[in-house]
Amino acid sequence: MLPFLLFLPTLAFGATPSLWPLPQAMKHGDGVMPLGPDVLLCYGEDCEELPNDIQDGWDRAAPLIFSHSVSSSVSTTLTISIDDPSAELNLEADESYILTVSESTIEITSPTQLGYYHALQTLSQLVEFDYDSEAYSIPNTPLTITDSPRFAHRGILVDSARHFEPVPTLHRVIDSLTYAKLNVLHWHLVDTQSFPFDSPSYPDLGKMGAFSKEERYTVGDVEGVVEYARKRGVRVMVEIDTPGHAASWCKGYPEVCPSTDCTQPLNPSTNATFDLIEGLFKDLTGGKKGEGIFPDDIMHLGGDEVDTSCWSSSDDISKWMEDQGMDEDGTYAYFIGRVQEIAHGMGREVVGWEEIWNHFKTDLDPTTIVHVWLPGSSVGPEATKAGYRVIWSRSDLWYLDWLKTSWDSMYEAEPTDGIAEEDQHLVLGGEGCMWGETVDTSDILQTIWPRGAAIAERLWSDKGSTTKAADAEGRYKEFRCLLNRRGIEAAPSMNMIGREAPESPGGCLDQRR
Amino acid sequence: MLPFLLFLPTLAFGATPSLWPLPQAMKHGDGVMPLGPDVLLCYGEDCEELPNDIQDGWDRAAPLIFSHSVSSSVSTTLTISIDDPSAELNLEADESYILTVSESTIEITSPTQLGYYHALQTLSQLVEFDYDSEAYSIPNTPLTITDSPRFAHRGILVDSARHFEPVPTLHRVIDSLTYAKLNVLHWHLVDTQSFPFDSPSYPDLGKMGAFSKEERYTVGDVEGVVEYARKRGVRVMVEIDTPGHAASWCKGYPEVCPSTDCTQPLNPSTNATFDLIEGLFKDLTGGKKGEGIFPDDIMHLGGDEVDTSCWSSSDDISKWMEDQGMDEDGTYAYFIGRVQEIAHGMGREVVGWEEIWNHFKTDLDPTTIVHVWLPGSSVGPEATKAGYRVIWSRSDLWYLDWLKTSWDSMYEAEPTDGIAEEDQHLVLGGEGCMWGETVDTSDILQTIWPRGAAIAERLWSDKGSTTKAADAEGRYKEFRCLLNRRGIEAAPSMNMIGREAPESPGGCLDQRR
Repeated sequence: MLPFLLFLPTLAFGATPSLWPLPQAMKHGDGVMPLGPDVLLCYGEDCEELPNDIQDGWDRAAPLIFSHSVSSSVSTTLTISIDDPSAELNLEADESYILTVSESTIEITSPTQLGYYHALQTLSQLVEFDYDSEAYSIPNTPLTITDSPRFAHRGILVDSARHFEPVPTLHRVIDSLTYAKLNVLHWHLVDTQSFPFDSPSYPDLGKMGAFSKEERYTVGDVEGVVEYARKRGVRVMVEIDTPGHAASWCKGYPEVCPSTDCTQPLNPSTNATFDLIEGLFKDLTGGKKGEGIFPDDIMHLGGDEVDTSCWSSSDDISKWMEDQGMDEDGTYAYFIGRVQEIAHGMGREVVGWEEIWNHFKTDLDPTTIVHVWLPGSSVGPEATKAGYRVIWSRSDLWYLDWLKTSWDSMYEAEPTDGIAEEDQHLVLGGEGCMWGETVDTSDILQTIWPRGAAIAERLWSDKGSTTKAADAEGRYKEFRCLLNRRGIEAAPSMNMIGREAPESPGGCLDQRR
Repeated sequence: MLPFLLFLPTLAFGATPSLWPLPQAMKHGDGVMPLGPDVLLCYGEDCEELPNDIQDGWDRAAPLIFSHSVSSSVSTTLTISIDDPSAELNLEADESYILTVSESTIEITSPTQLGYYHALQTLSQLVEFDYDSEAYSIPNTPLTITDSPRFAHRGILVDSARHFEPVPTLHRVIDSLTYAKLNVLHWHLVDTQSFPFDSPSYPDLGKMGAFSKEERYTVGDVEGVVEYARKRGVRVMVEIDTPGHAASWCKGYPEVCPSTDCTQPLNPSTNATFDLIEGLFKDLTGGKKGEGIFPDDIMHLGGDEVDTSCWSSSDDISKWMEDQGMDEDGTYAYFIGRVQEIAHGMGREVVGWEEIWNHFKTDLDPTTIVHVWLPGSSVGPEATKAGYRVIWSRSDLWYLDWLKTSWDSMYEAEPTDGIAEEDQHLVLGGEGCMWGETVDTSDILQTIWPRGAAIAERLWSDKGSTTKAADAEGRYKEFRCLLNRRGIEAAPSMNMIGREAPESPGGCLDQRR
């Protein structure tokens, strides 16, 4: 961090130019560089042809940068240097970039395509349009931005089980994530209420478990979403939440549930349950690291809110537990262990909600990632002290369905609070959770935004230069307007209740409810 | 209508297949035609190359029809016959089409590209996807749909002055209009609160009158929206609402307002006012029929809610009225007359809100189109009896910002109520009005939809086969799901309050609040 500190003073005073999320370091002068839609791309040392993903990145960014048609004779060169333009998306991926603007040249240097995508988003926020002269320019030149994320895992959870979220809706969510430099879509695919995925191995899961015949994802649909995200530098981490949130599985396969009237947690006493889980996981992962329709290294196994009473109220299961010499909690541990084993066998690291820590602590496989979510949870410090990695989503601060959580408390939330300096590297990052009980295509984007942007800056930017929401308010309001200008339904930024409609006529900066 | 009546019984009983809006006539068998993404387009007698707009129409429709990637060996031919593929968009344009499906051939025959666009929307609702076999098909074949709109003018009003609506938002509104076969975007461009248009002749209107420097439309922005709409068969009718809703004009040009503290209606006593209106209209219309950035034949001049007290409270204006021998109402009439004259001089027919009828009745130029909007208004029968044309948007029934107006009362509203049979041809159609006081990018689409669909079917379909909302409820719910599947934020269909979030988990058909 040291080299950045030199520049931080520039940012402290109202951060000209206004960027969201705040970059790690920026050096700038007070010149102005005119530019126009005529941009010459020069890739590599001899201006080679751009790899597809790199060209596509520019083709997506250009309409954001030049959103008004103008006649301009200005010609600009964008030189792009990327060491590895097809880097794997994972926790180790280098997302850093250097963006410089001087004379008539813009330069992007990054170790991977991911830094390049972020640099283009930064560039899209640097370019100003003057409505009177109808000309584009970049102020504050010469300018150098040296940037990289504070945390590797920066996500939004989307729940497609309480309401189905169609593919075009997921595409729009992914687009919006990239505007805030978020890089993970945590796809909470199935739950108690519905099972919207067509598993080739167990077709009746989707056929019987979906809300309707059209509220299902085919394998091709999922592949399309994951590829759409990959091209934009966004990882897709799938969650299959067992044993507690799985009643929808019984509709197609009643044998995996304790009984018809007491349907979850899943039945631990029969191999049918674990065979089904193994078959389903194989459909999702291809059975090997880096393969399958969800090639991400990490899989979320849920494990939360497990009320084991259905186990005891079933004669078969309680007899089975007795024979195994396991009580309910032991059976819960057994279940979590077996499912983790299945995922590990397919080359996946696993995440579980914090209840699994609260129950099993260091009995958990040491590679387990603990997802902190309970209000006021202190599991972060505990689990990291024991050497476990964590993802942070405390519900009282980062659950986007908590509509009364204000943007500034989301902004000032700190995933490393209470964690010893030497353990903080075990905090992989965090997620804003967009649980779907009252969210479908009609309102998901304005429930995620703009509060999701508060989370995005906390996860990307330097802690020291982003402590106070008050200092960020101006940029936050402007970012909401930017999302709106791009057609993203970000709600009024000063709302006291999330996603509420604007109260009265006014500009996009001034709205509140 | 007679030939259609033969088929109506088919529709009366649950209309298989389910289409929205209901076509005028449908004949079908009980066969099933398989089809796949491999569609051979054959245009004209010798399968000529498709004109750009026609090819683009298919390129937009194909992803709606084939929304899942599948491997299919089925090959289908779509033959397209269009007499005039580049017909002007106006009230006389023929939007009819015939769509037939038989064997492995789909056939679209239409007098203009407009009917072809509608036929593709109908086709996109006919095609079914089977999730189990992952195959597409069209049921109820052989099938012939003979269709045309009941009314020529079928619109949604969008208000970009109470809140700014960015260009990408307008694009999404236009996309959604075409799904319901609506064909008019009534663009209420400016109003009391803001003036978001950059007029080349009077640049300070936008520069001073917009909410912010970025909440303005350039000439290029407007041209882009109008062209985007044209390619989709949607007319854009601009409204400049004078003299009552114009306070934002004073910020750039105080001389056109009575005084700084009593800003509207516009000052009738100075030529500066009419010079500005003439210059602005020239910017919009090019000064000639069919030209300018809003080439539509019709221009809306507002004229509503004129409180003339600012005129009397100004010494200059009241003296001027006295000199002219005009009272306030006479001055109002004089103003309306002069502005209409300016628009007529530029080759435009004019629309005004119904107050101008209530004040001036048959003193109005006989070509004036009266826009009915007051609750319980009986102006439709009156004005048509006198030979005037009307557009129908009764606020108690078709104002989309009235959130408590239920979808079924919108559906059962009838623009011709009380109008003599022989005068009904003077009803051009109607509009759902999406006033912007509490609507911006964050909520405009879920406030327009799904209730806008009730209006769309009333304006398109045969009156006799769409009298009862109860008979349409099933199709209406399915159409909401279709909009969601296309990423359009249609709110839960059974909401008792417009645009409310879904109340609890469930399928897209069952939501209510």
